[in-house]
Amino acid sequence: MGKNLTSRAEDYSKWYNELVVKSDLAENSGVRGCMVIKPYGYAIWEKMQAQLDKMFKETGHENAYFPLFIPKSYLSKEASHVEGFAKECAVVTHYRLKNAEDGSGIVVDEDAKLEEELIVRPTSETIIWDTYRRWVQSYRDLPILVNQWANVVRWEMRTRLFLRTAEFLWQEGHTAHATKEEALEEAEQMMHIYAEFAENYMGVPVIKGTKTESERFAGAEETYCIEALMQDGKALQAGTSHFLGQNFAKAFDVKFATKEGNQEYVWATSWGVSTRLMGALVMTHGDDNGLVLPPKLAPIQVVIVPIYKGLDQLDAISEKVEPLVKELRSKGISVKYDKRDTHKPGFKFNEYELKGVPIRLAVGQRDLENGTYEVARRDTLTKETVKAEEIVEKVASLLEDIQENIYNKALDFRKKHITEVDTYEDFKKVIEEKGGFVSAHWDGTAETEDKIKEETKATIRCIPLGAQKEEGKCMVTGKPSEQRVLFAKAY
Amino acid sequence: MGKNLTSRAEDYSKWYNELVVKSDLAENSGVRGCMVIKPYGYAIWEKMQAQLDKMFKETGHENAYFPLFIPKSYLSKEASHVEGFAKECAVVTHYRLKNAEDGSGIVVDEDAKLEEELIVRPTSETIIWDTYRRWVQSYRDLPILVNQWANVVRWEMRTRLFLRTAEFLWQEGHTAHATKEEALEEAEQMMHIYAEFAENYMGVPVIKGTKTESERFAGAEETYCIEALMQDGKALQAGTSHFLGQNFAKAFDVKFATKEGNQEYVWATSWGVSTRLMGALVMTHGDDNGLVLPPKLAPIQVVIVPIYKGLDQLDAISEKVEPLVKELRSKGISVKYDKRDTHKPGFKFNEYELKGVPIRLAVGQRDLENGTYEVARRDTLTKETVKAEEIVEKVASLLEDIQENIYNKALDFRKKHITEVDTYEDFKKVIEEKGGFVSAHWDGTAETEDKIKEETKATIRCIPLGAQKEEGKCMVTGKPSEQRVLFAKAY
Ligand SMILES: [Zn+2]
Ligand SMILES: [Zn+2]
Repeated sequence: MGKNLTSRAEDYSKWYNELVVKSDLAENSGVRGCMVIKPYGYAIWEKMQAQLDKMFKETGHENAYFPLFIPKSYLSKEASHVEGFAKECAVVTHYRLKNAEDGSGIVVDEDAKLEEELIVRPTSETIIWDTYRRWVQSYRDLPILVNQWANVVRWEMRTRLFLRTAEFLWQEGHTAHATKEEALEEAEQMMHIYAEFAENYMGVPVIKGTKTESERFAGAEETYCIEALMQDGKALQAGTSHFLGQNFAKAFDVKFATKEGNQEYVWATSWGVSTRLMGALVMTHGDDNGLVLPPKLAPIQVVIVPIYKGLDQLDAISEKVEPLVKELRSKGISVKYDKRDTHKPGFKFNEYELKGVPIRLAVGQRDLENGTYEVARRDTLTKETVKAEEIVEKVASLLEDIQENIYNKALDFRKKHITEVDTYEDFKKVIEEKGGFVSAHWDGTAETEDKIKEETKATIRCIPLGAQKEEGKCMVTGKPSEQRVLFAKAY
Repeated sequence: MGKNLTSRAEDYSKWYNELVVKSDLAENSGVRGCMVIKPYGYAIWEKMQAQLDKMFKETGHENAYFPLFIPKSYLSKEASHVEGFAKECAVVTHYRLKNAEDGSGIVVDEDAKLEEELIVRPTSETIIWDTYRRWVQSYRDLPILVNQWANVVRWEMRTRLFLRTAEFLWQEGHTAHATKEEALEEAEQMMHIYAEFAENYMGVPVIKGTKTESERFAGAEETYCIEALMQDGKALQAGTSHFLGQNFAKAFDVKFATKEGNQEYVWATSWGVSTRLMGALVMTHGDDNGLVLPPKLAPIQVVIVPIYKGLDQLDAISEKVEPLVKELRSKGISVKYDKRDTHKPGFKFNEYELKGVPIRLAVGQRDLENGTYEVARRDTLTKETVKAEEIVEKVASLLEDIQENIYNKALDFRKKHITEVDTYEDFKKVIEEKGGFVSAHWDGTAETEDKIKEETKATIRCIPLGAQKEEGKCMVTGKPSEQRVLFAKAY
């Protein structure tokens, strides 16, 4: 397997597209904008799901499942939501096909036209709040803490694997609360959970913050988000959590009887992360040799490659390796022993580098004689020779090192790519030449935000949480500002 | 919570519909034919998924994900498949909505008509084989052993929760092999895995067999299935596994180079089980008091209900119960301690009976004094008093007993409901009056099968695997037959 991978420096975007396909994560399908997530990619997504699901359940959430289809009229019930979501979407208009009368194949049966069109869910607030109306009568029915793992569809004209696809997989949490405070706490909590997941499992450092009004989710009163920085200096929104106020409760008439017997509207949140995280994972850690996977999400944490001539040597190696495989597995480490005789070791080395396997052990005749393994780590591409009796311990500690190291490397990169500027001239220069996050004063108006976006393509990624207040002047209008916000070009 | 559950004897169908809703498994949504799977129902489905997924992976399968949409033309490529699946389905014709010019709301944007309609997948053979063409070049690329967990849509006019819904959740395995033998083995293997799951986890005895030609999956050369018997004497197909021959390989031009360098078409299987299994679970074990869940799939295996007057008594009880909860959990038993003060013990007893929780422990002031628990098992509705020091062991062994008992009960029922008949007159009588499986001789023709179906509504559920050969005469035509087959009315 020659990698033939375009380098990041040459063309970052091309590097990404090639890498996703060549490393067997995903590929385009015959359906415009819809991807096939291949087994290797899906195995990573499953690990993400398992960990997130655990964190959701630990915080009291349960899973449920709601319909794929949303009646068109539901979308219209929440005014700003329909503006945001009813536009580019897949519309089901008929429920039957028939054989064409001229024998040319199958055609839509015009007699089977739906009275009301159905929209393939772009997000499920409307269908879920229509359901919650039946579930909520009294304060005793609250809170509802429900999550759904599902596919959603948003028609996209320009698509890229994982980053922007017409269909994608995600989870969407939808909670209902008796008080505003509780809903706000929930929305914040989920942002923190997303951040913990991104940093401790994906090894992707993120900045927590809130969105400006114009960048908010359609129907939200506050959008919390986590923002990551890719190696090309562009930001990527890795998760959002929305405080929806009483907007959906009002749109779908969801009221509850309080302890005191009053009727009040329910408070809502929704929050989600998607297969987009796969894109963030690739772009944060990947290098010119391929993927670099965090050990906690790697489907294969350790690969063992025998180097041999003839079956006798292979047998001798296998005799040594097979007990090691068992021992590593008993410690919860996922190991692949690749003794395929159809491929040369060099081919295999390339393949597992491309696929980002954190640790590679190689063992040949000389290692057998010396009682050693050659240990290669994917993140640093360094090798060392380790005694067989120390190998289990070494592998376990290396996995921890690698997990930590790739996070720190990404964190260093981000630290170097947050630039404070005070003039619009500097701003434009940094955005254009250096990239990354730019921390600047802004007057708080959508007009200025729009102007900056139009002129530089940079958007306000977030108003960072817990940032210090600092009196300043908007770099564009000179109007007063109380806090710097983070701008960047973004995916 | 008064149950107000219709009894099975009174109206089995109504009993089922009410039970599914009242026990919080699922409910109808505002979208015709699409259900909402509620958290309690989804928790059971998650346990089913986890176990099946484990069994699939243990037999070498990996998960992947393929597009929700199938271009209309794909469906036409396999002739019998299109006949079976292209008829009642959800058709996406447009990709945009817009504001109506008269301000009346949002309407379909006629300028955004798709060149080719997309079908919401009713099953994924076509899109997957279109993908496999890109994955397979040589025998080295085979076998492909892939499974997908997904939602599918088949437009149904009359729907029932879990049993027949427009959208349902399922898994679909799609494998590709170099030889016919290997594909046949795979298809058989998956039938056996389904049977093992049904019997050992769901506690549902099943008969393994093959379908007659007219009952086969559209595009299959052989369909293996497992058939269960419900308490009303109707059969329910609980899982199918198809040997697809080279039909899809030919339709999508998927060839591989053999070791010898020839080009051959790939052999295929597909196999699936769906949320229909939830219906089978309810109908196999449920009684007039509600669900009866097998311990291996119960979200709550043990519920503990305190019986107290005043908070002092509750505190004393909790002091004893909380360490028990921990101990049971440490043994992997899922426990709920329901000390809600908003509901009376009798209400709680009813609720957990309705929800099929296998074991209920009650503890009151007298138990506290005596150092005992009242233990009630859901399957037999019997109670006994157990000493506190023996309770952990008792619970563990009871869970095993219950799992075994409900299986045996269902097996007894089925044994009593397989009737051998030799005349068509007897056949009609048994089908009409007693129900269950009827074992009879049939001449092997679709004509006779059709006639029987028209006249009695009974279909051939399967040609049982491993049944003894027995010379006989078709009960309808008198033509020779070599083996009895199983008829039943079916869901
Ligand atoms: Zn942000
Ligand atoms: Zn059968």
